[in-house]
Amino acid sequence: MRQFVVSGHDAPTTPEFSLDDLPGGAGRLDLLARCVTSALVLSHGIREDVRVHLVLADAYTVTFDGSSLRNFNPDERSTAARVRNALEERQEAIGHVPVETSPGVSLSRRDFAATVEHAARDGNVVQLHEDGAPVVEVNPPADTVFVLSDHHDFSGAERTVLDEVADQRLSLAPRPIHADHAICVAHNYLDTEGHTRY
Amino acid sequence: MRQFVVSGHDAPTTPEFSLDDLPGGAGRLDLLARCVTSALVLSHGIREDVRVHLVLADAYTVTFDGSSLRNFNPDERSTAARVRNALEERQEAIGHVPVETSPGVSLSRRDFAATVEHAARDGNVVQLHEDGAPVVEVNPPADTVFVLSDHHDFSGAERTVLDEVADQRLSLAPRPIHADHAICVAHNYLDTEGHTRY
Repeated sequence: MRQFVVSGHDAPTTPEFSLDDLPGGAGRLDLLARCVTSALVLSHGIREDVRVHLVLADAYTVTFDGSSLRNFNPDERSTAARVRNALEERQEAIGHVPVETSPGVSLSRRDFAATVEHAARDGNVVQLHEDGAPVVEVNPPADTVFVLSDHHDFSGAERTVLDEVADQRLSLAPRPIHADHAICVAHNYLDTEGHTRY
Repeated sequence: MRQFVVSGHDAPTTPEFSLDDLPGGAGRLDLLARCVTSALVLSHGIREDVRVHLVLADAYTVTFDGSSLRNFNPDERSTAARVRNALEERQEAIGHVPVETSPGVSLSRRDFAATVEHAARDGNVVQLHEDGAPVVEVNPPADTVFVLSDHHDFSGAERTVLDEVADQRLSLAPRPIHADHAICVAHNYLDTEGHTRY
C-alpha cells in the first residue's frame, strides 16, 4: 500500500468556509484537494491500494481510502465538499477513533504526529523535501508513506516528528514543486520501478 | 521551451458556463485547468519557459505563456475564469491571429491541427499516449511539444494530424493517468535528465 500524508497548515477545522474561495478563505484547500486527486485517480479508475491523509491545521485528519471510496470526482470543489462534510461530523469523532463520513472518507482528531505514527504502522515513512536525496538514485522502499507539506515548510514540531520516524528524506526534483505534483511524480517513480532510465 | 497542447473535446466555446460546475456543465474544464497549473507552476514560482495551449472543442485555443503571465493562481476556478474571460473576447480574434485577453493569456480561432502545427514551429512534437514507447527508455528531445488528450481519446482527425507531425509517440507510465498528472511526470522527466535511475 502507498500512503500520502499532507500537512495543511492553514486548512479549515470547521465547515464554515465557501467552496468558491478554496485558495483564500479555505486556507489552500484547493492544493489539498488536488493532492487527494493526484494520489487516488487513474484514467477512468481509482488506485485502490492508496490512502491519503489530509492533516487540517494539526487538529483533525481527513483520510481518503482508495479501496472503499465511491463516486469520487476529481475536481477540487467536489473534494473540498467531502472535507467540509467530514468537518460537519467532527463532534462524532472521539479520541483518535475515526468516524466514516462518506464511503471511503473518514475524519479523526489525530494531529500531524498521531497521523504519521499511525500511517507508519503500515509502511516506511519517507519525507519529501527539496533538500532530500534525489529519489531517482535511491531504491524505493515498499509500502511507502510519503509525508509532504503544503505551501508552507514543515513546522519545527513536524520536523521533530519526522526526524524520529522517517526512514528516508528524498527529493523528487531539482526544482521545488507543488505537493500535488510531487505525488504524481512519486507514483510514477514507483509505477516505473525496474525501468532503466535512458 | 516546453509546450503542452491539450485537446478538450467537450470544453465550452462560449462564456455561458458556471464556475461552480467545471466537470459537468463546463465540459471537464476542471481537468484542463489542472493541466495549465501542472504545466506552469513551481513552488512559489512560474515556469517561464513553458506555454500551454488548451484546444476548446476543436474551435478555439486559449494559450497561457509562462514568460508573460501575471497574478496566476493555481486553483481550478481561477484558471477557468481566465478561460471564460478569454471566450468573452472571442469576437476580437480574427483568423488565426490571437488576441491577448489578460497578461500572458491569449485566445485564437485555431483548431487542433492549426495549434499543433503552430506549436511545432518551436519544437519537436511528442504524442503522449498509453500505447507509446516508455518515456524512461527514450532520449528526451529538446524543445518538446507534448500533445495530450482530455478524458476522451484523440479523435480520428486528431490522430491523422499527429501521424503527420509527431516526431515520437511516448508513454509516461505503465498505467493510464490523467493528462494533468502526465504533465507533472513529463516535466519531472525533463527536469531530471542526466540522472541515473537506481
